[in-house]
Amino acid sequence: MQATNQISTISIIGSGNVATALGLALSQSGLKVVEVFSPNIANSKLLSSKIGCNYVESIEKLNPNSDLYIIATPDKEIGNVSSKLKNVVGAIAHTSGSESISVFSSFSNNYGVFYPLQTFTVDNVVSFNDVPICIEGSNEKTIQLLKTLANNISNNVVVINSQQRQLLHLAAVMVNNFSNSFYDMAHNILHENDIDFSLLHPLIKETANKIDKVIPSNAQTGPARRNDVDTINTHLELLNKHPEYSKLYRLMSNQIIKKYHD
Amino acid sequence: MQATNQISTISIIGSGNVATALGLALSQSGLKVVEVFSPNIANSKLLSSKIGCNYVESIEKLNPNSDLYIIATPDKEIGNVSSKLKNVVGAIAHTSGSESISVFSSFSNNYGVFYPLQTFTVDNVVSFNDVPICIEGSNEKTIQLLKTLANNISNNVVVINSQQRQLLHLAAVMVNNFSNSFYDMAHNILHENDIDFSLLHPLIKETANKIDKVIPSNAQTGPARRNDVDTINTHLELLNKHPEYSKLYRLMSNQIIKKYHD
Repeated sequence: MQATNQISTISIIGSGNVATALGLALSQSGLKVVEVFSPNIANSKLLSSKIGCNYVESIEKLNPNSDLYIIATPDKEIGNVSSKLKNVVGAIAHTSGSESISVFSSFSNNYGVFYPLQTFTVDNVVSFNDVPICIEGSNEKTIQLLKTLANNISNNVVVINSQQRQLLHLAAVMVNNFSNSFYDMAHNILHENDIDFSLLHPLIKETANKIDKVIPSNAQTGPARRNDVDTINTHLELLNKHPEYSKLYRLMSNQIIKKYHD
Repeated sequence: MQATNQISTISIIGSGNVATALGLALSQSGLKVVEVFSPNIANSKLLSSKIGCNYVESIEKLNPNSDLYIIATPDKEIGNVSSKLKNVVGAIAHTSGSESISVFSSFSNNYGVFYPLQTFTVDNVVSFNDVPICIEGSNEKTIQLLKTLANNISNNVVVINSQQRQLLHLAAVMVNNFSNSFYDMAHNILHENDIDFSLLHPLIKETANKIDKVIPSNAQTGPARRNDVDTINTHLELLNKHPEYSKLYRLMSNQIIKKYHD
């Protein structure tokens, strides 16, 4: 893929998981990420060295002539950051799943959202090829600019509005954050009993891969799906030492039983 | 792989998800599955035709000379089924994650457990190559017999006791059944709003694949991990129409916040 002629220079604000993943993907696709700013100077230095660009020590020192400023900060800082970018000529975009596009409306004419629907952890490189990138823009020009940028790193670019993005983010929290939290509880239970967690890897992967062929409601198996109360009670006894896990086990099972057996 | 010389003939009792997956895997590996029995005659016929073996219409009609009887029924029927097998010479094994091996102790000398740690849905063929098969046996001879059988279809055979198996099954319920239930909730929320669920596929797969490289507690991301109360409240508002989802969202988020921020 080659750099778009619409965007020559990009500034990145933020140095966390999303800023890192996106900064690397954009620069590796041939786009020119010129600088990074983050209040966390150590992270900022690290990311700029990975990308091979500058870092600046205050937001006021950002190049005022970049074509695009990507704000990959915690949601609550987006408003504050964008207020400091009100004199730049280039477009401004945030990467948040939940923050409305309207956060920018007082500070810019050309603004939008560039939301990669994926989970990122620093040090775990993710291929962007099939990561859905959800675009929103204040005007057609900005939408096209962000779409062109997104097409440079992904084959899965969609234009959606802020409410659709919020719903997608909510759904993403359920399938990623909550599933991973159950992986963690399972990890703890097995670790406490000297059982190798990697025995669960094939099951975890099959659970995820099955969705290509079977919708989730048809893929449901297990004691709650069968309304197998004896096994559920056995598991609740095993969870005696973990009252919070037990509470979640009970609620999840009730949710499944209600769906399939009421 | 070739058939073990220790087991020439296998009878399968049951015709559900596990019986189907296992019956097919064993017969395809070259082992001789001679017959199927299940009180559900239609399923029994279907499975026997897939395997290319007989089906019998009552448990009393099972061949009394099979080397192994695999009981892949609901847990609560295992005791009853095995009581009717007390005169057979061959070994008896169940495939349950939760039922103790001792369910067989009144009915046989050579008995055990053959538990494939995977989720099976009829019509979704799963490769057994890396499926952990958890073996337990009443004596060394039966353990060796079941291990040999398991090695015929999987490269991941472990010998564990009933309590370890129960804990693994509990953990499996968490990572599979509960994750899938969250996939289903996400599916419903997106479907209600005409948003394509397949946009979540790359995220779901990355969540599962990440466990090869990152332990779950380090892979946790999202609003609760960041203690981002504004986003959590936005999501809870979006879940107004689904009070049960809302309750689960709140509890899961609290569990994550407590782990990382208390």
